[in-house]
Amino acid sequence: METQAEAVTPAPSTAGTVEIYDTTLRDGAQQEGMNLSVADKVAIAALLDELGVDYIEGGWPGAVPKDTEFFARAAKELDLRHARLAAFGATCRAGAQPHEDPQVQALVDSEASVITLVAKSDIRHVERALRTDGQENLRMIAATVRYLAGLGREVVVDAEHFFDGYRYDGEYALACVQAAFDAGATTVVLCDTNGGMLPHLVTEIVTDVRARTTGRLGMHAHNDSGCAVANTLAAVAAGAEHIQGTVNGYGERTGNADLVTCAANLDLKLDAVRLPGLAEASRIAHAISEITNIAPHPRQPYVGASAFAHKAGLHASAIRVDPDLYQHIDPVAVGNDMRMLVSEMAGRASIELKGRELGFDLSGQPELLQRITTRVKAAEAGGYTYDAADASFELLLRAELDGGRGPRFFEVESWRTFVEHRPDAGPTAADSEATVKLRTGHGRTISTGEGNGPVNALDHALRGALLGTYPEIEDFELIDYKVRILDSQQGTDATIRVLIDTSDGVDSWSTVGVGTNIIEASWEALTDSVTWGLLHRGVEPR
Amino acid sequence: METQAEAVTPAPSTAGTVEIYDTTLRDGAQQEGMNLSVADKVAIAALLDELGVDYIEGGWPGAVPKDTEFFARAAKELDLRHARLAAFGATCRAGAQPHEDPQVQALVDSEASVITLVAKSDIRHVERALRTDGQENLRMIAATVRYLAGLGREVVVDAEHFFDGYRYDGEYALACVQAAFDAGATTVVLCDTNGGMLPHLVTEIVTDVRARTTGRLGMHAHNDSGCAVANTLAAVAAGAEHIQGTVNGYGERTGNADLVTCAANLDLKLDAVRLPGLAEASRIAHAISEITNIAPHPRQPYVGASAFAHKAGLHASAIRVDPDLYQHIDPVAVGNDMRMLVSEMAGRASIELKGRELGFDLSGQPELLQRITTRVKAAEAGGYTYDAADASFELLLRAELDGGRGPRFFEVESWRTFVEHRPDAGPTAADSEATVKLRTGHGRTISTGEGNGPVNALDHALRGALLGTYPEIEDFELIDYKVRILDSQQGTDATIRVLIDTSDGVDSWSTVGVGTNIIEASWEALTDSVTWGLLHRGVEPR
Repeated sequence: METQAEAVTPAPSTAGTVEIYDTTLRDGAQQEGMNLSVADKVAIAALLDELGVDYIEGGWPGAVPKDTEFFARAAKELDLRHARLAAFGATCRAGAQPHEDPQVQALVDSEASVITLVAKSDIRHVERALRTDGQENLRMIAATVRYLAGLGREVVVDAEHFFDGYRYDGEYALACVQAAFDAGATTVVLCDTNGGMLPHLVTEIVTDVRARTTGRLGMHAHNDSGCAVANTLAAVAAGAEHIQGTVNGYGERTGNADLVTCAANLDLKLDAVRLPGLAEASRIAHAISEITNIAPHPRQPYVGASAFAHKAGLHASAIRVDPDLYQHIDPVAVGNDMRMLVSEMAGRASIELKGRELGFDLSGQPELLQRITTRVKAAEAGGYTYDAADASFELLLRAELDGGRGPRFFEVESWRTFVEHRPDAGPTAADSEATVKLRTGHGRTISTGEGNGPVNALDHALRGALLGTYPEIEDFELIDYKVRILDSQQGTDATIRVLIDTSDGVDSWSTVGVGTNIIEASWEALTDSVTWGLLHRGVEPR
Repeated sequence: METQAEAVTPAPSTAGTVEIYDTTLRDGAQQEGMNLSVADKVAIAALLDELGVDYIEGGWPGAVPKDTEFFARAAKELDLRHARLAAFGATCRAGAQPHEDPQVQALVDSEASVITLVAKSDIRHVERALRTDGQENLRMIAATVRYLAGLGREVVVDAEHFFDGYRYDGEYALACVQAAFDAGATTVVLCDTNGGMLPHLVTEIVTDVRARTTGRLGMHAHNDSGCAVANTLAAVAAGAEHIQGTVNGYGERTGNADLVTCAANLDLKLDAVRLPGLAEASRIAHAISEITNIAPHPRQPYVGASAFAHKAGLHASAIRVDPDLYQHIDPVAVGNDMRMLVSEMAGRASIELKGRELGFDLSGQPELLQRITTRVKAAEAGGYTYDAADASFELLLRAELDGGRGPRFFEVESWRTFVEHRPDAGPTAADSEATVKLRTGHGRTISTGEGNGPVNALDHALRGALLGTYPEIEDFELIDYKVRILDSQQGTDATIRVLIDTSDGVDSWSTVGVGTNIIEASWEALTDSVTWGLLHRGVEPR
């Protein structure tokens, strides 16, 4: 435990000198369910350059055909302003020379100015996975580094399984690091490949490596112990000057160190790096998750949708006065926003604040504020939640501003939907159909829609009925649909809450509906969604 | 060989003495989008007891009406084998005595044997949020602790904003801790309420508090810097003997410290706690996420679906031969499984184990086991999950034992359901009706049912059609109904999974259905439910 106390470092002396090396496109792509096209990779690389990382590891040319193509396209299409591209590959094979090894040659052919070589540094992996001996592995490292450095490339060496190897046979692990430096590697990266390290061990081990070698050391952490970020910080405090990670913490198993979280801590709290695009980090992280098509984690530090969302109604007034007493940093520093959640404990202060966020100044109108608060509380008691449904909250607020009525783009006459089992098509296959009858200023319309289920059919019928009057809704698309049973323990009689996210390609908004009938609840959220969308297009009721 | 490694792992002197305090039901419930019913809370508390935590913080009686009800129901319904219930609340108000304060009285009335008081320890919060002075705050802490301890309750004090307070005015923050101990608090918990701490600061600050006070210290971390787990470990290494956190890391903003990750690190790697249910942690964490209806994070350390998932490439055989060289722990220790990503979730070993759990010995029948595994894998790839639907799994297993067919109590001819909006009854009110046509050995029946929604109507129609042949189903009652959208980001076209719990007053069982149509998926789960119920009543098809 004294070892931990030694880890208490003042601000590292490395101010601003820690390199940021992104491996989203290589190690991050190992994530379960991720499958990036070459075009995806090019688009992500451009975003990483905007973020301001120093290196972008593009992939493994020669081993992965798509990655060979990436480097070819990147050379033509990408105009990187800050980052340098790195090609990843292995040291030459046992018994071979680097210039004879086609995979090493593919690294050269990628024309990347930086080449990152993965090298074994755990003697057990050398013997059991590589099936060679420790001396031959040292020769492979030295020969490959020397060959590539001799061609004028910057060579980074990733010492795979370094921490486990060090704990098993520290002298051999260190010999691998030294062999890389001696042969001309600019940086040797200590990899916690299995991700099981804890910060106090990282401190101990990196401190020892630092004392016994002289080149630039890096850290590559995985999150299997939930400590990837802290392990990265511990390595920097112990002397590492290069950190590797991925945007959104993508990666195999529990993922790699989240590079934005590491960089934000090192930049905003420890003054050890400068990430030029940090103030755009939230937008960039979300844009990358759109490309990977992996839903962003709302609780992600710094850039998550919930990262600066406050629920506690009691403290709403205090938060408004002294936001710095309730937030670890100013969310603007990472391009995020403080949000007040209109929750069960909703008080007038949090509703006033929420109103301001949406562009309504309610501060001078205590009676109106009280009416809205009363209405929100009654709705929440009935199962509504406005946490995740800003658009429905805004419609409620506008209705109160407007004497209880709110904007009306159409009058619903009736709707119905049915689902019918088709015995010929399979044991459960069913047809869904819906009919909507409504009036706009243009007259009465009846529209029938089909769909995968009753809500989908209803959505199609509603659009069909409105499109003639409001062609603007052509762009609206349902992008998410969530159902929550509120009193479970009551079987199918339960109260049901539906949340719908809609997008028009530019903005997205969320609406809520509640009922004992899932179709009623969905209908309410659907009509709110259309109403809000038209309102924000500046459309007048026709 | 092990010269350096030996020095590295300092076994904490706290072996097995660190208390585990769960606040999923109180601080975890602050998570955006989470809304737990009293029944949900009771169910989660039972799971937390299985996990083996020492304390379960149930809520804030007096301030939140649902929490008052939780403590009343918990006293009657919960038979906790390991954990003790804690009621959370604030110190008495400024200028008041604890015995006169209705909120303090509500804590007493909860009859929880442990009371956790939140106390301000940052002088700025005392002055600006509490609007009183430092001396009065110290009196409020001392008086409330002394009053509750005098009634025989164990009193834990959560020192809110402690770390920020310490950095601003360390003497005042320490005075708050000392006041609590002097008045009889058993534990004072240092809270990183804003979540911005880094491990080296936690080490420094807890080391100082440890040196200057004598009672039991605890740690309460939030994850805003991505270091909640590491901060908790740092506090323990510096002398804390009580840790707070939530299952799945639920909580406001970026969430609280993930209690399972903290406990697994402390148990498996540092020998500082014993969590009796650790080997069940994956199942329990997933069961809790079913109740909260918040999709589990696949990359969650230890218990995540991807936590031990390896991309099967060059090293697949090496991983099989030497799994310990590629995994930081044996996944069995936390009830998880190693997965090679060429295959889907289910492995033969886990299916054999599940079969045994349900009373089927599959060990001598490798071909049958392979057939079942293949079928489960195909089903899981299509969105089914059998984790929470044992009855559907048993029906699948019996079908394979029976040559693919399984028990048939009725043959469905067709079904249909419709929902029609009644404009006269209100803006959204709708009628739901369903008709089911089926055959049993007694002949063909047609039955029409009404209900609160299409699924409820379908349930009523199905029972109506079967009751003549199988009067046993009179006792069956749907007690829970859950819907999860599997591919969100596809709006109402998404794949939908329905889970239904049914009870006959003695036993309860769970079934699953999947489809792009919510009604189809519900129908599948409904018919499975009736079939399993009849089977377990020993009824023969009539």
